[in-house]
Amino acid sequence: MAKQNPIRGKFIGVGTGPGDPELVTRRAWSMIEGVRVIAYPAPDHGTSFARSIVAEAIHPDAVEIAMVVPMRSGRAPAQSIYDEGAAAIIAQLNDGHDVVMLCEGDPLFYGSFMYVLARIQPDFEVEIIPGVTSVTACAAAVAHPLVARNDVMTILPGPLDDDVLVGHINAADGLAIMKIGRHMPRLKALFTRLGYAEKARYISHASLGHQTGMSLADAPDIAPYFSMILLYKGDDPWIN
Amino acid sequence: MAKQNPIRGKFIGVGTGPGDPELVTRRAWSMIEGVRVIAYPAPDHGTSFARSIVAEAIHPDAVEIAMVVPMRSGRAPAQSIYDEGAAAIIAQLNDGHDVVMLCEGDPLFYGSFMYVLARIQPDFEVEIIPGVTSVTACAAAVAHPLVARNDVMTILPGPLDDDVLVGHINAADGLAIMKIGRHMPRLKALFTRLGYAEKARYISHASLGHQTGMSLADAPDIAPYFSMILLYKGDDPWIN
Repeated sequence: MAKQNPIRGKFIGVGTGPGDPELVTRRAWSMIEGVRVIAYPAPDHGTSFARSIVAEAIHPDAVEIAMVVPMRSGRAPAQSIYDEGAAAIIAQLNDGHDVVMLCEGDPLFYGSFMYVLARIQPDFEVEIIPGVTSVTACAAAVAHPLVARNDVMTILPGPLDDDVLVGHINAADGLAIMKIGRHMPRLKALFTRLGYAEKARYISHASLGHQTGMSLADAPDIAPYFSMILLYKGDDPWIN
Repeated sequence: MAKQNPIRGKFIGVGTGPGDPELVTRRAWSMIEGVRVIAYPAPDHGTSFARSIVAEAIHPDAVEIAMVVPMRSGRAPAQSIYDEGAAAIIAQLNDGHDVVMLCEGDPLFYGSFMYVLARIQPDFEVEIIPGVTSVTACAAAVAHPLVARNDVMTILPGPLDDDVLVGHINAADGLAIMKIGRHMPRLKALFTRLGYAEKARYISHASLGHQTGMSLADAPDIAPYFSMILLYKGDDPWIN
């Protein structure tokens, strides 16, 4: 019923891609340029990465809703953060303004956007503009294929237990390990034990000026949040 | 050694995204506009989907290298197709022309680009511009999250045997089944048997004008090549 009210604004989840402003889609860029209310997650200290990617597209008069989400703490942020952020967005939507929420990578692939979406989706028109994920950006950084033909691809968060990781690594052909950060020494030891440390690739800051890519065996023990391990262990002779 | 020769052209793999020309990245679009040699896979009959997405960006004087790849036959195309395509591209690179190869979705995520890449990469400078994949475009089409927090996401080609699919479906939180086509009746029966037919979503032609999205239980038995099944079976209360 609410969706038929022409006075209400639309809520638009926009993927900003992996970091390079040039890897934003044309639709995302023009959507950001066209709206006057922009929401985004921001860390407790410092600036919002999602916002920094598209800063040039944001109208100088835009109202900005910064949602402070302590994402790298290891603990799940309190749901009250999303309650408050969603309330601020809903107030703008009820005033008839379209609201873009910026999301690093893709809005529906990990990330905190979905908690805001769940609070707004029942009552408002929603559009999602998908973005380039860090997985394909990391593969591009080392110009190495992820999967081919009937290969199975699995994406694994690094904080998972070794036993869980090993089961999935054994079962898949292509693998991406995300959210590495402080888990790097354990992950490197695990890949070494499995015999994949040379074959696996480590990538940090994909698509940015300080991007790095190397064999996991050569990677430093200290990994930033924006880093990934990629492994192809399928049987396609053209990838190996 | 060859990479230092300034006369040789650069080979650029460009992801054209899921289908909507607006979902091409800004860098991909301007790269296509800027080069005068464009390669792409084309079906035996009809036009190249990758080319059609970015047709407006292709310079009218561009040389076009159409690589006829019978992709939907179920059989792997002969490697001689890639030999010939790569040879035509290499001739242009040796003449000092940059060559863009267009790839539906992302260049390194399934698809035939990697067979061309493998033949060119040893001797020429290469750049990959990642693209929006059909996986995130399908999630966007139904505005439903793929995975959150420490969820595991697995991407499965539909032609795989039921036993293999079941093992991965049981082990992952978020799933995408690609390359459905003629496997749709079997896949629908499998998801029904597992009790996921209502919960899983079926999407066809994501991002295009004739895009559809519905519960898998309501999906037709005849599925096009450009269709996908998405399932979230993790325990995040905000996605379910």
